[in-house]
Amino acid sequence: MALNDFDLVLFGGSGDLAMRKLLPAMYARDYCKDLPETARIICVGRAEWSQEHFLQTVETSSKPHIKETPTDEHWERFLQRLVYVSVNATDVASYGALVEALRRDPAITRVYYLATPPSLFAQICDNLKATGLATPNSRVVLEKPLGRDLASAKRINAEVGKVFAEQQIYRIDHYLGKETVQNLLALRFGNILFEPLWRREWISDVQITIAEKIGVGNRLGYYDTSGALRDMLQNHLLQLLCIVAMEPPTSISPDAVRDSKLQVLRSLKRFTPTTLAQNIVRGQYRGGYVDGKAVPGYREEPDAPKHSKTETFVALKAEIDTWRWAGVPFYLRTGKRMADRLAEIVVRFKQIPHSIFHQPTSTFQPNSLVIRLQPDEGLSLNLMAKTPGDSMRLKQAELELDFREQFKAPRMEAYERLLLDVLRGQLTLFMRGDELEAAWEWVEPILNHWEQDDNSPLPYASGTWGPAASSALIGRDGLQWREEALPED
Amino acid sequence: MALNDFDLVLFGGSGDLAMRKLLPAMYARDYCKDLPETARIICVGRAEWSQEHFLQTVETSSKPHIKETPTDEHWERFLQRLVYVSVNATDVASYGALVEALRRDPAITRVYYLATPPSLFAQICDNLKATGLATPNSRVVLEKPLGRDLASAKRINAEVGKVFAEQQIYRIDHYLGKETVQNLLALRFGNILFEPLWRREWISDVQITIAEKIGVGNRLGYYDTSGALRDMLQNHLLQLLCIVAMEPPTSISPDAVRDSKLQVLRSLKRFTPTTLAQNIVRGQYRGGYVDGKAVPGYREEPDAPKHSKTETFVALKAEIDTWRWAGVPFYLRTGKRMADRLAEIVVRFKQIPHSIFHQPTSTFQPNSLVIRLQPDEGLSLNLMAKTPGDSMRLKQAELELDFREQFKAPRMEAYERLLLDVLRGQLTLFMRGDELEAAWEWVEPILNHWEQDDNSPLPYASGTWGPAASSALIGRDGLQWREEALPED
Repeated sequence: MALNDFDLVLFGGSGDLAMRKLLPAMYARDYCKDLPETARIICVGRAEWSQEHFLQTVETSSKPHIKETPTDEHWERFLQRLVYVSVNATDVASYGALVEALRRDPAITRVYYLATPPSLFAQICDNLKATGLATPNSRVVLEKPLGRDLASAKRINAEVGKVFAEQQIYRIDHYLGKETVQNLLALRFGNILFEPLWRREWISDVQITIAEKIGVGNRLGYYDTSGALRDMLQNHLLQLLCIVAMEPPTSISPDAVRDSKLQVLRSLKRFTPTTLAQNIVRGQYRGGYVDGKAVPGYREEPDAPKHSKTETFVALKAEIDTWRWAGVPFYLRTGKRMADRLAEIVVRFKQIPHSIFHQPTSTFQPNSLVIRLQPDEGLSLNLMAKTPGDSMRLKQAELELDFREQFKAPRMEAYERLLLDVLRGQLTLFMRGDELEAAWEWVEPILNHWEQDDNSPLPYASGTWGPAASSALIGRDGLQWREEALPED
Repeated sequence: MALNDFDLVLFGGSGDLAMRKLLPAMYARDYCKDLPETARIICVGRAEWSQEHFLQTVETSSKPHIKETPTDEHWERFLQRLVYVSVNATDVASYGALVEALRRDPAITRVYYLATPPSLFAQICDNLKATGLATPNSRVVLEKPLGRDLASAKRINAEVGKVFAEQQIYRIDHYLGKETVQNLLALRFGNILFEPLWRREWISDVQITIAEKIGVGNRLGYYDTSGALRDMLQNHLLQLLCIVAMEPPTSISPDAVRDSKLQVLRSLKRFTPTTLAQNIVRGQYRGGYVDGKAVPGYREEPDAPKHSKTETFVALKAEIDTWRWAGVPFYLRTGKRMADRLAEIVVRFKQIPHSIFHQPTSTFQPNSLVIRLQPDEGLSLNLMAKTPGDSMRLKQAELELDFREQFKAPRMEAYERLLLDVLRGQLTLFMRGDELEAAWEWVEPILNHWEQDDNSPLPYASGTWGPAASSALIGRDGLQWREEALPED
């Protein structure tokens, strides 16, 4: 599908996200000849850089992040599209240069990508409106964090909503842009084989993990006021949970999918003071070893408050109060300084009710579908199969379900996919405002509870899978986190 | 599991089956060191051959059928096991040599493999009894054809049953010895994922095909009094149908599995004169081209009766009157001189009820599980999957489910597996007497109908998939035989 001509405006256009992700993603699409001849990328920054200086920065800070080193010819063509404009986002008087730079033809798609702190969203939107730039052909892309609690999320929605209509607003969660998340939708709804089993009768539990090896790095200033629950769980983990748990949408049109996801968020069982204490574990990393190298604890990180109560790990057991999912635990966890870098969804099916074979039932690994998002992407199904030869002995075997080999087509990075969707006006993979608020609504009692709690997060050694309480949380139900359950060989 | 020492007696030991299949199968097991040091294979033939002459025959007629050419050392060791004994099977007086040859130790397993015409079964059994050879440590293996109608099958059961107890009788159907048939059982009953879908709610239809390219060859004398229904459908096709359709047995013990299979045979909807006419197609090949070579029609084969009404093709629609299968058609067909050599079971699932994608439902190939038995063995699942990259476009993809790659263990030929099972006393993969009779009982009205029918079988050109009526039979239900439904690319 050919793209309409566009002006893509990157606020924060000289920043980290633009350099590392957005420009490389646009280059990749340019390289594949997906971009119209005259389409442009207008990078907006506060610094009063010349176009030359900006291009120099792109050369040194962005080009190294492109997967295949570009040929000179391609690279030149790409640089032609780039325009640097110096704007002080909070000063409406400085928007003149942007007004100048933009093409006025209403047939040209216009996208404002706000890769800025959310504290600037309201003012940028206001200023776009004041300068007549918030035209009907405009779309606005919002990057996380989208609020730090329900009230602030509502405020962002309201403020952006004063300038842009809901269908102009693209709230990005890049996990939804992953190829494998789409594969999961294709598998569930393109085949008769999965949907009948996709329910409490056949599924034992679902585990969703996003584990990082890195520590807080240079983000401490932001992170210490945020923590793992706000930074990862409220958005990425809950979005993945929605994709797994949603009822079949009537179509993949934006509102059909987002209605289904919203229903999941609204059906999440609310925590009570009792269940809060039982079903949530928060942790904070101490010193330890990651990949054999000694690393400091969170409180020893530069500028860290010595008594910080910010959690760098959270694990919780969620439940969904619907006919489909009642009683099926969804275990979510995320953390920094974990034993491995890993993002995955594990849908574990129930054990077979009875073994007709000579092996006892306990030797049968229950079937599981594993959706890997990091470090590589993949979708695989674990089955029990007969070993070839004489005896009827069954062993676990793994089946790849994403057919990379068979289709031989390249996959797309999440940001490539999502930017393309913005440019095409496809909202399906973006969060709607009411979804955002529903997620905060569910998370808020946890935030409040922790605020009133005098206890610190549980300490865990860097390079481990978090506090032992996390294993105990799932162990109470007779289950294990997948990495603890994997066979040895 | 180590085998007990044995004397394996092959009646018809100088014949075609022994040379082409049984001795090579035993060699393969010997090569894998599965056979006890002192185990022997006693080949019984009518001809008064010397041991030397027999070994010469083995060298020229059997050795070429061994997959890997044996080394001299292995081959010598194998020949050491072979003993040729000349016996006139119908003359009890000639059994002395066999009595001599057999070891009397009751701890040694003794197997009589009757690779002879079934007309000899009764007399061989009687003679074994009369000469004291039908000992409690004996087993008897019966090869098809096991009767030509219900009465003759009952007679065989009764006659063999006078000498051997049911648990000593191994009725061979070599399709049950195929690795892939075992794989299917492992898949169905070793995983939670298949059994819930294995029923009328989710399965549209089942197709079982055994197609041969060869004509009647030198078997005309037998074949003209038999035909495709007796030769292939009553046994192989119905046995495969039982494996697909049976309720979960309580265990893989012989009687549990055979009880489940028997239940299927007894639940097959009986044909009435009306349904006989509607749901069965018989055909007879005419001249045509197979692999580009001109071949004669059945009636032009040497010694063929010029007006023979023997069917060389049969296709029928069966139904199973159970809660699980009511209304699900099972299409069976078999024929000679077909377009391809092929044995397969296709379990076709229903279409997805609704497409949430931009593609209409009609572009979704319904899921199907394909169990290939010939020319190669394999088990694969057809799914719809997302093509990688930008758009949400789904295409059919094929998934191998027999894990040859992952297990890297050699598979076993059907006769190897079945001979081992006989030697170990494992009856699970052999037909019980009541199964045999139940299969004939269901088939008999078809035989009777044809006998009274003045019409000849429908002609079909050699090298095709049979009479057009076969496509019409399944087409009436809005379906197609798989080879007609395969996409072009």
